[in-house]
Amino acid sequence: MKLILQKDLGFSEKQIEEIKDSGVSINYYNNEIIEGDIFAGFPRQPFSEIENIVGLKFVQSLMVGFDHLNLNALLDRGIIFASGSGVNSVPIAEYVILKILDHLKDAQKFRDQQQLALWNNRVENAKNVDELYGKKVVILGTGSIGSEVAKRLQVFGASVIGVNTKGSKVEHFDHTVSIDNINTVLKDADFTVGCLPLNEYTKNIYDYDFFSQMKNDAVFINVGRGAQLNEADLLKVLKTHLAHVYLDVVPSEPLNSDSKLWSNKKISITPHISSSSLYLRERMKDLLIYNIKQFLNNEEIKNRVV
Amino acid sequence: MKLILQKDLGFSEKQIEEIKDSGVSINYYNNEIIEGDIFAGFPRQPFSEIENIVGLKFVQSLMVGFDHLNLNALLDRGIIFASGSGVNSVPIAEYVILKILDHLKDAQKFRDQQQLALWNNRVENAKNVDELYGKKVVILGTGSIGSEVAKRLQVFGASVIGVNTKGSKVEHFDHTVSIDNINTVLKDADFTVGCLPLNEYTKNIYDYDFFSQMKNDAVFINVGRGAQLNEADLLKVLKTHLAHVYLDVVPSEPLNSDSKLWSNKKISITPHISSSSLYLRERMKDLLIYNIKQFLNNEEIKNRVV
Repeated sequence: MKLILQKDLGFSEKQIEEIKDSGVSINYYNNEIIEGDIFAGFPRQPFSEIENIVGLKFVQSLMVGFDHLNLNALLDRGIIFASGSGVNSVPIAEYVILKILDHLKDAQKFRDQQQLALWNNRVENAKNVDELYGKKVVILGTGSIGSEVAKRLQVFGASVIGVNTKGSKVEHFDHTVSIDNINTVLKDADFTVGCLPLNEYTKNIYDYDFFSQMKNDAVFINVGRGAQLNEADLLKVLKTHLAHVYLDVVPSEPLNSDSKLWSNKKISITPHISSSSLYLRERMKDLLIYNIKQFLNNEEIKNRVV
Repeated sequence: MKLILQKDLGFSEKQIEEIKDSGVSINYYNNEIIEGDIFAGFPRQPFSEIENIVGLKFVQSLMVGFDHLNLNALLDRGIIFASGSGVNSVPIAEYVILKILDHLKDAQKFRDQQQLALWNNRVENAKNVDELYGKKVVILGTGSIGSEVAKRLQVFGASVIGVNTKGSKVEHFDHTVSIDNINTVLKDADFTVGCLPLNEYTKNIYDYDFFSQMKNDAVFINVGRGAQLNEADLLKVLKTHLAHVYLDVVPSEPLNSDSKLWSNKKISITPHISSSSLYLRERMKDLLIYNIKQFLNNEEIKNRVV
């Protein structure tokens, strides 16, 4: 069985050997015609691998999102496509917990005070220091990322409400509502976390109407996709609503240095790193090996999309 | 049954009513001779309440530490003393998780980049972004605070090692070792968290010998007591060892503005706020009511010290 790997994926030699041990030979894709059964990598449009890999039967993407890909070409040819869903859920969940706690513990104030070598009096120091225990957190999207966030929040004693298409029950959520009923939960949320995939329904979903339903002291965190945010609406709503917004994704990346998002005191920006981790390649390798074995044995492919 | 409450404890009217409903009348302590059965507050030396409250049988401290109190005077008079252990374990545990994640996610770099309106390239951004999953965390002290930290760390998939007097097993810890064998675990720890009470054995425990056993990229967090730290040794060891140190307590509080701790790039200081929380009074009230009822019914007092 021939596996074609995208070049420079960042796997170590040891990881490559482990992949080989799953029962495949490895060749690297070089934008040339090549024979192969499986392709693994970060596919982009134009999806040249479909044309160039002769005998291709299975594409294992190592990315979570596939909104940028035209999957019809795969469907037409009967090629299986599986996403990398799950490979970055753990680091993203950790990022979300970090930002929630940073806000609740008034951490920026103390970083500022250290710059001034200032140990303020007890009452001033403590006055806004809060805790996660008992807070209401609404998570938009109850897939792999949302679930990892929820699992961690529950051990902190937060109340965790999930929002998904049909309001289906999901483990680690205290309860769930359908996206049509989002208004019933947004208004009470202390924190709202966006971890939705990008599609025609979620594009521009974070607009004035969305934000204006939230409490004045609510916090919004987006680790989904930048195109879900209406930037102008956010800047407008922040004048009167919301305590803080944490954005790991923005409508146009890289964010231009003259964007007003950078300088707004209510916005904290990270450059699309919530999914980064030194451990990411290990999880990609584990998923790839798992699905190679499933494919070889004609068993169900994890994260299969088409 | 008469409860004497310290003035200005910060309880709300509703909380005071709930305390009354447990079966006591409430009077406030005003440094004058007064009759009472129970005293609750933040006792300080000189412990004038012992002399001034006639008929005192039970002192419920609402503080966790009692290293500053001479308990012999209570012992001599057969007065029960219970600490406030547990009332601040949840906020302290949240603080510890915040600091661990802040370090692992390279969060300061991105705060600095936002100041510069800089969205760096993907490789530069991601190169030090790590995750808590799989990390080794050593927790010194496996009481209420250490256990709350451990419980949260386990759901993140960290490996959690506890250190206590005899190496006794404790829930939420993967394993425990005795303080005499601390050298067997310190050397491999990614994070070491100090949440020990202050006593003759733990004073100055964080000295050169302690720190020099740690890995060069290790992180130390102290949420115990400031007097456990040898400040000069820490500053010396940081020249060659450790990646970062988070101190919520320091040897002399408030920390003087000319202290070298403030400006060391490897040190992050917060002014003894890890235990702060808007929810603290609620937990104190719950503990007080619980122990009033236990006392009235001649049942075992929680957190009894003498």
